[in-house]
Amino acid sequence: MATTQIIAEPGIPQLVVSREFLAPREVLFRAYIDPDLLRQWPGPRRLTMTIDRFDPRDGGIWRFIHSEGDDADHGSHGVFHGDPSRERIVWTFESEDFPGHVRLETVMFGERGGLTVVRQNTVYQSVEDRDAAVASGMEEGINESMDRLDELLGRLVPVN
Amino acid sequence: MATTQIIAEPGIPQLVVSREFLAPREVLFRAYIDPDLLRQWPGPRRLTMTIDRFDPRDGGIWRFIHSEGDDADHGSHGVFHGDPSRERIVWTFESEDFPGHVRLETVMFGERGGLTVVRQNTVYQSVEDRDAAVASGMEEGINESMDRLDELLGRLVPVN
Repeated sequence: MATTQIIAEPGIPQLVVSREFLAPREVLFRAYIDPDLLRQWPGPRRLTMTIDRFDPRDGGIWRFIHSEGDDADHGSHGVFHGDPSRERIVWTFESEDFPGHVRLETVMFGERGGLTVVRQNTVYQSVEDRDAAVASGMEEGINESMDRLDELLGRLVPVN
Repeated sequence: MATTQIIAEPGIPQLVVSREFLAPREVLFRAYIDPDLLRQWPGPRRLTMTIDRFDPRDGGIWRFIHSEGDDADHGSHGVFHGDPSRERIVWTFESEDFPGHVRLETVMFGERGGLTVVRQNTVYQSVEDRDAAVASGMEEGINESMDRLDELLGRLVPVN
C-alpha cells in the first residue's frame, strides 16, 4: 500500500498532502464527488461522518458533521470555487470548532502510468493557523482518511 | 498622508497590505461594507468600478466589474466567509481574467490612538500565483485604492 506524504514547511502557511492510488482518475474523482462514496472515507476511523449539505458546483456549499458516540458533533463547511473537474477541485474549509479560521483547499488529480496521484494543497490565513491545525493531531485524520480512501477504491476497482 | 505598506516575502504564497487612516474604525468598516461608499475606491483611478452583486454576510456572494472606456470589462467575484464585523472581514477573490486562481483575503481593522490600522492579508494557492499577481502590476492598483480610500474618508470625516 502506498503511503501518504504530508509536507508542512516551517514559516509557510501551507500544507501539502500527496498520495498515489492504484485506480483510474475517474474513480478517484467519483470518490470525492459522489455523496454515497464520499461519506465512507474522510476523517479518522473513530468518527462517523454525515453529509448535511453537498452541492459540488461553483458557489455551492458543503457541510459535514463528524460524530463520536455521545461526544459533541464536529461540523465543518465551506464553498466550492469553480465547478469540480477531473483535474481539480477547489473549496474553502472552516471547522465550526474554530469559527473564523478559514482554509483554501485545492485537490489535484494527476495520472502517472496506471496510478492516480492526488495532491491536496491547503493554504491557511496564517502560519499560526497552520501550526495549530498540525498540533491538533490532524496528521492522524489525514493518514486514516487516505487509507480509508485507498480501501474504498480497492472495493470499487477489483485488482486481478 | 500615510503610505501603504505592501509585503510579499519570497517563497511564501502571501501578500500583506497595511495602512493607517485618520478615521474611526466604524467609518472604515462602512467604507468596506456600504455599497455607496465601496463603489468609490477599489481599483486604480483609470478604471470605473460597478457593483454587480454584493451580499456581505456568511456565504454571501460579491461580484465587481472594472471598466476602462471601450476596453473589455474585468470581472472579479468571491464569497464572504463569516459575517463581516468591525474587527475583520473574510472573503475569497477570483479574477475572471484568470479563472481557477482563487485567493483567500482577510481584512483586519485595528485601532491605534485616533487612527485605524487596516491590515489586508491575502493567501494564494501557490507562490507562483502570488508572484504572477505582483508581476501584473497589482501594486499600482493597491496604492491607488488605498489613496482613494483615504480621500473618501477625508470627505466623510472632516478634519478641523
